[in-house]
Amino acid sequence: MPRIVQKFGGTSVADLDRIRSVAARVKAEVEAGNEVAVVVSAMAGVTDELVEWTSQMAPLHDAREYDTIVSSGEQVTAGLLALALQERGVVARSWLGWQVPVRTDGMHGKARLERIETAELETRLARKEVPVVAGFQGIGPDGRITTLGRGGSDTSAVALAAALGADRCDIYTDVEGIFTAEPRIVAKARKLDKITYEEMLELASQGARVLDARAVQIAMKHRVPMQVLSSFSATPGTFVLDEGKIVEAHHVSGLAYSRNEAKITVTHVADRPGVAAALFGPLAEANINVDMIVQNVSPDGKSTDMTFTVTEDDLARTIEVLKGAKDGFEYDTLLADSNVVKISVIGVGMRSHAGVALRMFKTLADKGINIQVISTSEIKISVLIEEEYTELALRALHTAYGLDAD
Amino acid sequence: MPRIVQKFGGTSVADLDRIRSVAARVKAEVEAGNEVAVVVSAMAGVTDELVEWTSQMAPLHDAREYDTIVSSGEQVTAGLLALALQERGVVARSWLGWQVPVRTDGMHGKARLERIETAELETRLARKEVPVVAGFQGIGPDGRITTLGRGGSDTSAVALAAALGADRCDIYTDVEGIFTAEPRIVAKARKLDKITYEEMLELASQGARVLDARAVQIAMKHRVPMQVLSSFSATPGTFVLDEGKIVEAHHVSGLAYSRNEAKITVTHVADRPGVAAALFGPLAEANINVDMIVQNVSPDGKSTDMTFTVTEDDLARTIEVLKGAKDGFEYDTLLADSNVVKISVIGVGMRSHAGVALRMFKTLADKGINIQVISTSEIKISVLIEEEYTELALRALHTAYGLDAD
Repeated sequence: MPRIVQKFGGTSVADLDRIRSVAARVKAEVEAGNEVAVVVSAMAGVTDELVEWTSQMAPLHDAREYDTIVSSGEQVTAGLLALALQERGVVARSWLGWQVPVRTDGMHGKARLERIETAELETRLARKEVPVVAGFQGIGPDGRITTLGRGGSDTSAVALAAALGADRCDIYTDVEGIFTAEPRIVAKARKLDKITYEEMLELASQGARVLDARAVQIAMKHRVPMQVLSSFSATPGTFVLDEGKIVEAHHVSGLAYSRNEAKITVTHVADRPGVAAALFGPLAEANINVDMIVQNVSPDGKSTDMTFTVTEDDLARTIEVLKGAKDGFEYDTLLADSNVVKISVIGVGMRSHAGVALRMFKTLADKGINIQVISTSEIKISVLIEEEYTELALRALHTAYGLDAD
Repeated sequence: MPRIVQKFGGTSVADLDRIRSVAARVKAEVEAGNEVAVVVSAMAGVTDELVEWTSQMAPLHDAREYDTIVSSGEQVTAGLLALALQERGVVARSWLGWQVPVRTDGMHGKARLERIETAELETRLARKEVPVVAGFQGIGPDGRITTLGRGGSDTSAVALAAALGADRCDIYTDVEGIFTAEPRIVAKARKLDKITYEEMLELASQGARVLDARAVQIAMKHRVPMQVLSSFSATPGTFVLDEGKIVEAHHVSGLAYSRNEAKITVTHVADRPGVAAALFGPLAEANINVDMIVQNVSPDGKSTDMTFTVTEDDLARTIEVLKGAKDGFEYDTLLADSNVVKISVIGVGMRSHAGVALRMFKTLADKGINIQVISTSEIKISVLIEEEYTELALRALHTAYGLDAD
């Protein structure tokens, strides 16, 4: 019997009526002859409010208490959806992270999943019961509630699908699927029918907010077919699949952008071995992720400029850490600029097709947009440009790569 | 070292500022050299909202899901208070019912406490940590969250105080203590400095809403000294103690009233053995509590009228049950009246003083108030009267028993 994990995000369970609609969708899958497990987020806005209370109460809060407080949102939704299902004649019960149990490491506030013990859930599925699992939460080695960080309910759902060997993990959200670009900016953006895990991972990592990147990683690792679809319409969504299952790969599948970027330039760094380590070592220790890195050619062989990006959220801390680390290496000045955006072009087809990067550079040049930093991977090209060109760049690239809807 | 359990009700933790005030009170007890454990309710209004959602989602809801949903309120408060204490330099952590664990039976929605396993809390108390325990909740034999019914946080606190062998259980609320009568009705009501467990139990059972009757029963059984006091003022509250510790007992300590009463009269019931069982058996089976019962003398030796009271909430179900049970016994008509109030006079002193009842009857007669039903216990006299006389009766009795403030 096919087995499906359905995940419903915050807007899909925003109030009692929407939870009732969700129950109807779950029931439809059950009646279609599937074994179904459900993962739910908190009602839209609830988590934000709880997080806000936590920070107001203690700016540097104990992450264990944060987890206790914030995880209550999913607890409420899981119970309400179980009731809504029972009202429709579907046998259902709620499962909290510690009840399943969903085992995580001890990093409260951003725990990593270690394993999901599914024995009891398997028993229930076998007797046609629908488990409604509270997303985003687990239990740590200390016996206390942990949470998986924002977007963690996607991770919960995919990991549960993997643990249960599900045939598909459906991620219900408030958009109809994965688009070639953000439709609010690019009016001609199209919904994709299919996309590979690798592309989805790049999209999610480069700024597309529909799916959590960790969730995609887990799906890719365990080869769990995913579908991203809207809980507000009846149309199929976007399937996220193995590359082998996608017959015709596009050169470019989609565009992503992220405004949460800041560029830092450290000038006149001594150009000698070990200087990059001296610069980036302290940042890594401070748990700051460095994304794009450019080291200029040293004209005199003695000193060079290093440019790199971090998220805008980390900018203040980055400057602080670098100033504190000045003993380890010499530099002249430290320039910071958060008035930048990262635009990424993603597609598995670029592996086998030359000229994808060239088209990007040419398109941006034609619009008079200066590229500040470039970084590439096998299936992605990202550029850092001035933030005010965001919309112009996205629309021009969307047309240039033939992504526009008819 | 003295050990105190402090319990804070919903209005005492209604928002972040009030939770901060509570933290200050807890810190004061710690700094005074006490070992302190805290029990908290949900923020005022939260439980009502969660209960409302539950009933809207499923009028006849699965009590296990109800417990999962409703218990989240105390979870949030416990975490927030732990953070507020940490901010003030007090070592503290939250404890959910299943973490302590607080073991209950499996009656979801109105579970009974079975035992509180305090080993871990004892360890923490010994190293000067303040456990902040979520009230109202426990864990059942099925491994799921249970709740203790409304007012259950008082029960949690007293049971925890008993299990920890605490020297005192302070119940913080929004009134300054136990009064001789409801101050909103009887302007001359006085706050009592001390009251016996027995009197407090009668007051709570007869309609005073300050303390939960179950909590008083547990305190009485384990001889836990209690104090009821306001979290909004610095004055001492009312101590609830063993009779032996109260030097001078009043004849009457206080008055209580309950409008949540309904009177049912069944006329011309056959006056033969077994008829009371035939009448009240089905009500007991339907879990309906019958309070006052009067059986009229049978003038002809053949038939009689039975009058009894139930809570107004149970009235509709009571009538339904009795109509369904008509096969078991014969009666003529069934009269129901919810336009009644129960007024009770309570005091351990009435054991040794005659005339307390007489004074009640005389005072009411002087005001032209007709008594419909009477019931007495060793330390209590209750009468059922027409509801519109509530205020008049309470004020007149308050004066008649010498309870008025100077």
